[in-house]
Order: sequence, then C-alpha cells, then structure tokens
Amino acid sequence: MEKIEKWGLFEVSDTGIATGNPFTDCEITGIFTGPDESVQVRGFYYGDGVYKVRFMPSYEGKYSYEISGNYKSGSDEVTLKGEFEVTAPSDGNHGSVRVKGTHLAYEDGSPYYSIGTTCYAWVLQGEERRAETFETLKENVFNKIRFCIFPKHYLYNLTEPCRYPYEKGNGEGLVKDPKGPMFPPVEKYPIMGFNYYKPNPDHFKLFDDVIEKLCKMGIEADIIIFHPYDRWGFAAMDKDADDLYLKYVVARYAAYRNVWWSFANEYDLMSNKEIADWERYAEIVCKEDPYNHLRGIHHCTKPYDSSRPWITHLSSQRVDLYRHVEYTDHLIEKFGKPVVWDEIAYEGNIGMGWGNISGQELTRRFWEAFLRGGYAGHGETFEGHNDVLWWSHGGKLYGESPERFKFLLKILKETPGTGNLVYKPGMFDETIAEAEGAPGYTLHYFGFGRPSSRTLFMDPAKKYEVELIDTWNMTIEKLGTFGGMDTVPMPGREYMALRLKEV
Amino acid sequence: MEKIEKWGLFEVSDTGIATGNPFTDCEITGIFTGPDESVQVRGFYYGDGVYKVRFMPSYEGKYSYEISGNYKSGSDEVTLKGEFEVTAPSDGNHGSVRVKGTHLAYEDGSPYYSIGTTCYAWVLQGEERRAETFETLKENVFNKIRFCIFPKHYLYNLTEPCRYPYEKGNGEGLVKDPKGPMFPPVEKYPIMGFNYYKPNPDHFKLFDDVIEKLCKMGIEADIIIFHPYDRWGFAAMDKDADDLYLKYVVARYAAYRNVWWSFANEYDLMSNKEIADWERYAEIVCKEDPYNHLRGIHHCTKPYDSSRPWITHLSSQRVDLYRHVEYTDHLIEKFGKPVVWDEIAYEGNIGMGWGNISGQELTRRFWEAFLRGGYAGHGETFEGHNDVLWWSHGGKLYGESPERFKFLLKILKETPGTGNLVYKPGMFDETIAEAEGAPGYTLHYFGFGRPSSRTLFMDPAKKYEVELIDTWNMTIEKLGTFGGMDTVPMPGREYMALRLKEV
Repeated sequence: MEKIEKWGLFEVSDTGIATGNPFTDCEITGIFTGPDESVQVRGFYYGDGVYKVRFMPSYEGKYSYEISGNYKSGSDEVTLKGEFEVTAPSDGNHGSVRVKGTHLAYEDGSPYYSIGTTCYAWVLQGEERRAETFETLKENVFNKIRFCIFPKHYLYNLTEPCRYPYEKGNGEGLVKDPKGPMFPPVEKYPIMGFNYYKPNPDHFKLFDDVIEKLCKMGIEADIIIFHPYDRWGFAAMDKDADDLYLKYVVARYAAYRNVWWSFANEYDLMSNKEIADWERYAEIVCKEDPYNHLRGIHHCTKPYDSSRPWITHLSSQRVDLYRHVEYTDHLIEKFGKPVVWDEIAYEGNIGMGWGNISGQELTRRFWEAFLRGGYAGHGETFEGHNDVLWWSHGGKLYGESPERFKFLLKILKETPGTGNLVYKPGMFDETIAEAEGAPGYTLHYFGFGRPSSRTLFMDPAKKYEVELIDTWNMTIEKLGTFGGMDTVPMPGREYMALRLKEV
Repeated sequence: MEKIEKWGLFEVSDTGIATGNPFTDCEITGIFTGPDESVQVRGFYYGDGVYKVRFMPSYEGKYSYEISGNYKSGSDEVTLKGEFEVTAPSDGNHGSVRVKGTHLAYEDGSPYYSIGTTCYAWVLQGEERRAETFETLKENVFNKIRFCIFPKHYLYNLTEPCRYPYEKGNGEGLVKDPKGPMFPPVEKYPIMGFNYYKPNPDHFKLFDDVIEKLCKMGIEADIIIFHPYDRWGFAAMDKDADDLYLKYVVARYAAYRNVWWSFANEYDLMSNKEIADWERYAEIVCKEDPYNHLRGIHHCTKPYDSSRPWITHLSSQRVDLYRHVEYTDHLIEKFGKPVVWDEIAYEGNIGMGWGNISGQELTRRFWEAFLRGGYAGHGETFEGHNDVLWWSHGGKLYGESPERFKFLLKILKETPGTGNLVYKPGMFDETIAEAEGAPGYTLHYFGFGRPSSRTLFMDPAKKYEVELIDTWNMTIEKLGTFGGMDTVPMPGREYMALRLKEV
C-alpha cells in the first residue's frame, strides 16, 4: 500500500476529457477517509488530458479514497477508489502554521517565528534566477516567502514573465481596460487578449514545483492571489473568471502544508474590486480549502477590516513613515489576532522611501515587531545589480540585515515557556517582551537609544542573570546576576538589548 | 540727555524704605511716554534700600517718565521725573521675537530661526561654570536658551544651588509638604523654611546679569517660571507667594527684549497646581508685561490646551518615542501658532531614552521640525564628565549635533521670500518645505531614507537648479539644472536633502 507521511501531499491522477474547455466544463472530486477525518476536496485539470486530486492527511492511519466527477465521460460517475497509509511525519515536518491565541505555531505545537521575505515575481523570472534564489534561501533563515501567482508590472518589473497564467487569445482582450497601478503607464504595451477561462497549466506547474521545494526547505509559501501591478488584465478579470481562478488555485495548492493565502497585495489599489468581491473570494477560499490555511489581505494605505472572521492574521504594511511596528501590541490587543508585518520598508537604496532604509533600521523594526508579540518580513531593493532586485526578482542578497535575522531567530528559539513572546508595558523608552508561561524571562530592547547604563526594576525577592545582547554586532555578553532595583553597565551604542533570566 | 537705543533697557533707580518687607509693603511704578507710546510699568525692590523701574522703549524719539509709589515715604507720591532720548537700534538689535502668522520673527521683521538649547539649572551652578557656558554659547549658534529661575532637584541635580531665590527662615518651612518629582526621594533633605515673601535679591541679580549678557549675544532667554523638580518648596508655594513671585519676575526682567515666558517645564507634573492656577499666572503675566513677550507652557505627557489665547506658541515635547517633530505641520494647522519643539530627546548616553539619542537622530529631528514650518531645541546629556551635563549644568558640549546646527542655520538663512519655510505635502517619503513668498525654492529632506537617485516632479515650464545637501557631512553639491519629471543622482546615504531653486 502506498505510504505517505502525515501533512504530506497525497495525489491521485487520472486521464479524462482533453477537448473543449476542461477548466470550465469538467469537474473532479475526491473523498478521503481515514480513522479521524473524512475530507472532500476539489481536483483540477492538470493539462494534456490529465486530472489530479490532491489531499493532505491530518492524521496517521489507513485512509481510503473515492474519486468522482464528469471529467472522464461528461457524466458524473465514480472513477477511482483506493487506499493508502499515513505514517508519522518526518523530521522537519511540523504541519501547517496555525493561529494559537495571538501567535503562530506549527500544527504539532512547535513555535513558528515568522521571519518572512518578499520576492513578488521571482517564480516567473526563469530557471536560472529561481535556482539562484533557492540557493540564497538555503543560506538564510527566512521561513516564509511572499510571492505572486500573476506576473508583475511595476518599476523594475517591465519585462514579460517566463510564463503567462492564461492562454493568449486572438489579440482582442476579454478585458478592454486593464487598470493597473499608477505607473509606469501601460498604454505602450500590446493587449494580448488572454482567455481568462483557459489557465495555462505550465504556468501553474511552476508554482507546484516551487511550493513543494519551499515545503521541503521548511519555508512557508505566502501566495498572493491578486495584485494591482498589472498590464495584462489579470487585475481586472470578470467575476466568473476570478472565481474560476480562485477555485483552481485552491484545488491545486491547498494540499501543500506550507501554503498561506494572501488575498491581495495592496488590495486598496485594485480599483476594479470592491469589498463585496474580497468577501466573495474569502467565502470561496474558506469553502474550498479543507485545511483552513492562514488567510490574510495586505493593504497599501487603508487596512482591510481585520476583524472579519475569515482573516486569520494581520498582514500589515506601515501606513506611517515613522511609527508602524511600534503599533504591534496595540493591533494585537485590538484584533486579538497574530500580527505579521509583511511590509515595513526594505533594506536598499532605490529612489523610493519604501525601498531604501538601512540594514540597521530594518533590523530594529524586526526586534520591535517580535518583542511586541508580532512577526516581521524582510525585502531588499538595491539598485546596481543589473536591475535584479530581491524584492521582486529574487536572486542574490547584498544587504546587512539577513545575517542579523539569523542571530534574532537563534534568540527567539531560546524563548522558554510556550516559546511565545508577549509585550510587557515598561518604561517609555524600552520595549519589553516576556516569555509566555515563563515570566522570569524578559528581553528589553532599546532601539535607537544609546544607554551607557540602565537601571532595572527587578523583583527584589529573586535573582536574575542579565545578558547584554548587541543585536547588530550579534554578540551576547553576560553582565552578572542582579536583583531588585539595580543598574547594569551598557556600551552607549544603538541597537542593544538586555536579557533577564530568573535563576 | 541720557540716550538709549530702541528696544534697549532704560532703568530708573531710587532709594526708599529698607525696613519691614519692601517686597510686599512697597510699590514703585513708572510711566514712560514717548512720541508713539505711553507705558505704565511696575518696578521692583532691588535690595539694600534700592528700588528700580525698568522700561523697554519700542519707538525712537524723546521720552519722558514719571516715577511714583509708596516706596519712599509709605504714602503714594510722585518721586521722580525725567527725560531721555531713544535712538535707532544698534547692529544686532532686532527687537523682541514676535509671532508672525505661524512663524517667529524679530520685531524689526527679520527672520528668527529658533535654534534652542536647554540648560535648566546653569545659572545656579556658580561663576566658573557660567563663564564656561557663555564660552560654549559663543562658539555655537544657539539663539535661545531655556533655563529655570528656581533651583532644580533631579537626577544629576542633587547639590545645593549657588543662591536661593528666597531668604531662609527659622527652619520651619512655610510649606510643609513640598511635592517634587517622582525621584530621587526628597525625604533625606532638610526643610530650610524659606520665607516665600522675601525674595533674595542676590539670586535675582544673577539672572539680570545672565539675561543681559545673553541679550548682547543675540540669544533669547526662555525663562522657566515654575518647574516640578523641587525639594525646597518652590513648586508648592501658596497662591499669594506665587503671585508675588510672578509680579516680581515680570517687573524685573520684562524690559529685556530677549525674554520669553515659559510658565512651566512639565506643568503636568506639578501636582500642587491646577489649571485655574496656570490661567491665573497667565492673566498676571499678560497684565504685568507691557511688551507682550512670547508665552508658552511645556508639558510632560499631557499638552496644555494650546488654543488658549495667552499661549503665543507651542512649547512642545514629544509624547511618543517614535513620532513627534513629524507632527509639526499638523500642530501648526490645528492651532495656527508657531511650534517650538523644546524637548525632543537629547544627544547623549545616559540611561534614560530622553537623553541618549545620537547626534544624527537629533539633527534629523531638527531638519524635520524646520522643514515642517517649526523650530527645534537641543539638549545634551553625556555621562562621564564629572556629572556635568549640558542639559542642566551648562559647561562644555561633547556631541556631534551642534556643528550640524551651524550648517542648518546657514541654510535656513538662505531662505528667500519672507524667509519662512512652510510645509508642502509631497510624496509619502520626503519632507518638503517651500519658501514662503518664493515657491520656486524648495527643500526636500529624506531623513533615514537612502535614495541613490530621486525622481522629482517639477514644473515642466520652468528650470530649477538642484543641489544635493548632505545634512550630516555638511556639504552642498550642485547637481545641475532640471525641469519637468526628472531624476537626479543621490549618494544612497542617510540624512540627505535636495534644494531646488527656480532659475
């Protein structure tokens, strides 16, 4: 009997109708039944007359399945039955990331410290760049990557993608007025007349491969379903095409345990879509995805109503140039959901403020976000490397912050108790995090402050080992054991933290 | 005939009653009449049987005066009459600083770019430190200094002052419960039993000398009338003593053209005083000060209602660690008054966040404040110099920001039109200031952004000379002449500005 590990991807393939439009005309469904669950999932047309149903088992034991649909004969019928065995998860397989209170954790309960990165269009840059990007990811600690399914039209993103998500039509676009972002203007580009009812299987196959490879590397795939940076009309398809696309994407990718659904990048820039559309998309994904993957929606200037029940976590972008991650604890308190800062400006040197902060400043924002109980995402936008910018194309990294994230993650992984950090109001000028379930463990972060000493107000009945953490130079120095109101020496430099451990 | 320059200080002295309590029992008043004004002012007891009336003429021409009061015989009578000539102001005498729209300007109309500094208790540190402070001021461009009349009790401020503002009494304090700041505790200090109805003339003489010397140096004296950092009871005197003090201070110092009235430092920490008290103080000062000097009140966490008519300008402190001077334009719009940031954290390395930011960060805050149409104040708190910290004691400066203020002031003085900068909404990631009355002149500031190029959206019908200003390295580099939408090269470093001048 075929064996598959728990939270692995089990796939059934079959051949069927290849004529007409299998994407709209044919259906394939699977019911998977194990000792603890019975799950019905939609399959999808894989191309070349092949249909597939994918399933992720959540329990160990013997499963059976039954495949049905009209894909074979045009009439509904049961087409295939079978059995398989679900074994224990292998090392490094912790299941999907889930919401646990106002934090994130893997399904097996182990902590997940989301250190994201953003490479919007890297999947569509061609084989060589993808390979290079995977190499870079291997050398770093990013455990989430944010990317688009549709190609991107924007500054530095003006070439055609290596694949298109739809078949090109007869030159007459189904969408006459593709509305993209403010610039660059789209007038000079040809209307390709895509058929938004005929997905291009090769395009979606690319994403299978990428998501699977990321899964093996322990990296969450934060899939951006829609985005406004468009000149091909993908941002302005009609309702039915949108819905077909959503069902296709969910049927195809939901069985990968590392999938997150990001309904949009900067939803509020998509002038063709209304709140009712986003709500309909959410309804479809909630219905079609049996695994209840994380769902977020990213904004430009106007956050989506994060209290909506389908939103599992905040996918935040700064809306103020000066104060943003410092709102993390407020947002957590307000919405009672995990806060993931997906866009807090990128390390780089391009002309726009969202892409030219220093490694120091980005690292500072990460520390603030984590110590306030949230999570942060990176991006990099350096000009001067043949117009290849990590933020969109992947490739190589040139910045100074990624090395600091390794150090940060090492520290985060040392958190006792549940492993989660919770914000603890302290003095006005420090950010304090307490280990959930282990209140004797605290981190005190001073950001751009440069104390040459610091008075701590500790429980006089206890003793604390105090360490000085240089978050930039990545050193940890033991300062000794203290208790009560006491003053510890500090180096008078920026980006310092203190760690207190009750002994 | 005696001559005095316009906006100079004219003083009449007379001897009178030296017994009893001249401060409460005796009055002296002057009426000064020139071709364009007739002003009645209160005089004061100078000590040793001497009474003085001080007057600042606002017009040129021949003036006469008449002194009266009960100070000589105990009964009201006219005691002296005389004449003097008011000549044109000398070089460097521009009159008092006034409100002009939402900006500040000297009375003669010339621009005043308020680059303040704070040395709370420097006047009471002794002769040597005062001399050293004057030397430091000479080497710098600060044109306003903020200081207290009463001595200060606070961290780093625990020694006794060189003078006390009142006569010591019999060891029984008139105020039984001096309420000072939160720390350090005041219990261990003796109650000296000051007589709050007997000012110490020597104490106030010190301030005469200091204010006069500052005036000659072109430095505004931002006099802090009350403050909470107290162990002597000066923060908790009774109503009558407060009022006596206020009248004395105004009578004594108002005729110095460089005086500003700061009703309090951190008024909201003064637990003995209510809003009604502050309003009464304001009424007294408005009535007693015939020259209508600038009036502000500084807060800790809760700003005073800045819409009160007696408040001429906002004396602001940041109430958020991360965003503060960036509210300047909002505050100007909200209150329609000049915004002076008197406390935005100090360059230094002490334990508290309000006193350990870098020179770069303080300089950045200055640029933001000025380009948003406001003004900013400096302070310095470096440990390691025998507990002498500029912020309170004066002395020497060790920081890197003062040098940058020289450069900033040079640039500010080059502003065409009225000389004022007004905030101009631009892109999200730059702060733009336009020269009031000369809209072809703009400054674009990028703060912690590091653009390696910048696209500017200029009037295509005009040409602009563009300069790159490195606000930290203090260089100005001509980039050439541009117009319309064009991109200029930048160095990809922090703290850069561009200056555009229509040619």
